[in-house]
Amino acid sequence: MAATSQWIIGRNPVEEALQSGMEIEKIFLQQGITGEVEKFLRHTCKDRGIPLSIVPKDKMRKMISGAHQGVAALIAPVQYQVLEQVLPDLFESGKVPLLVMIDGIQDARNLGAIARSAWVLGVDALIVGMKNNAPINEVAVKASAGALLKLPVCRVSSLVNTLLYVQASGCQVYASDLQADTVLDELELTEPLMVIIGSEGEGIQNALAKRADRQFIIPQARSFDSLNASVASGIIFYEIFKARIKSFGPETGSLR
Amino acid sequence: MAATSQWIIGRNPVEEALQSGMEIEKIFLQQGITGEVEKFLRHTCKDRGIPLSIVPKDKMRKMISGAHQGVAALIAPVQYQVLEQVLPDLFESGKVPLLVMIDGIQDARNLGAIARSAWVLGVDALIVGMKNNAPINEVAVKASAGALLKLPVCRVSSLVNTLLYVQASGCQVYASDLQADTVLDELELTEPLMVIIGSEGEGIQNALAKRADRQFIIPQARSFDSLNASVASGIIFYEIFKARIKSFGPETGSLR
Repeated sequence: MAATSQWIIGRNPVEEALQSGMEIEKIFLQQGITGEVEKFLRHTCKDRGIPLSIVPKDKMRKMISGAHQGVAALIAPVQYQVLEQVLPDLFESGKVPLLVMIDGIQDARNLGAIARSAWVLGVDALIVGMKNNAPINEVAVKASAGALLKLPVCRVSSLVNTLLYVQASGCQVYASDLQADTVLDELELTEPLMVIIGSEGEGIQNALAKRADRQFIIPQARSFDSLNASVASGIIFYEIFKARIKSFGPETGSLR
Repeated sequence: MAATSQWIIGRNPVEEALQSGMEIEKIFLQQGITGEVEKFLRHTCKDRGIPLSIVPKDKMRKMISGAHQGVAALIAPVQYQVLEQVLPDLFESGKVPLLVMIDGIQDARNLGAIARSAWVLGVDALIVGMKNNAPINEVAVKASAGALLKLPVCRVSSLVNTLLYVQASGCQVYASDLQADTVLDELELTEPLMVIIGSEGEGIQNALAKRADRQFIIPQARSFDSLNASVASGIIFYEIFKARIKSFGPETGSLR
């Protein structure tokens, strides 16, 4: 993540990058900096949906080499897409959408591995929040074997609002939950769907879990710990993909 | 892996460790060392099925700090089991064995992740070769979330001979192969089974693949790369586990 090529440092370069419309993963602003530059960054980040991180001087110095003047931007390796365009497009093209929402996956390798399985197993788009998840950086792209450069990724400011939008658009929302009674393959998997993938430690945040239409569990032989998040995701995508091949044949559904 | 606590260094300590019956992952002998110590190590390693690695002086120095006298042993974090005891025991206890053979997985994290899924999804034992695979070290144990300390692991000197033994004992042997015509869930999964898991890059070595009873594929929506080895393994174990719950109920089959 510290590869220089991914960073833009200094006030003017960052302002220019933002004005040029370049895809930015995150902006870092040194704690205590105020005035025009701070106002501009706050405004632009809010406007463009870019996470703005305020970091102590010391951390800034460790993170970035060079004369950063208290401002740095991490270039996004992917071109984010807008869910309000992606989802209607999927419906209009006659597909049965399969969306995946990532909630609190902190490890970039895990995120990349999930994206790889998602791409291979026919997921249409990945939804990530602006906070509380691993950045989509070179590590994530590498772990995805490049899938993150192909699979549409939508970055949203509120996962809850996005869930409500997706439901209002006609998708069922399913959430995995180790306490659920319903087993994965008992679910209706051939409807328009969004699946929420939570972190191994924390699971899915309550604000999302309670709004999901169904909760499900992956059966376990032994009640020791659980599957890791990327393996669990792969199993979920596989089960949905199988159900869709069976119902729609190999050429339809979420296939392309 | 370089944590001192895992190493035994020096001629006498290593000899004593071997004589005490301690479980050793691997012995390292400096290139050019001959005489009694070399003879003893060769003999004992062959006898006990411990990999013996001959390494150049320079590499030895980088790997091990301290006065190693050209000899070092890596302590195994798991207690290996003997397949010729494990498999008959499974049959005798009335279970339908599910064995997993690892072929050429080089990454300890991947190996650990596979072991974790194997444990959670009801695999009875893992079979690893002495060569050409990741060592079972602290990294693997950590990635397995401790599953490697619970799941029986059998280390064998010849994967091919082991395959033949497993077949002769009454198990079907299945191998995943990206070119196969049969899809995973079309296989008979409720018989005594051994599944071979190959590496992402190389697949399963020909000597094993050609002796397998069936080859199968995991269906893919997009023909871009494949699933990663730990995700593919999780899907395979899940599909077998589901088939067994369906046939035997949740309390039988490979369950315990």
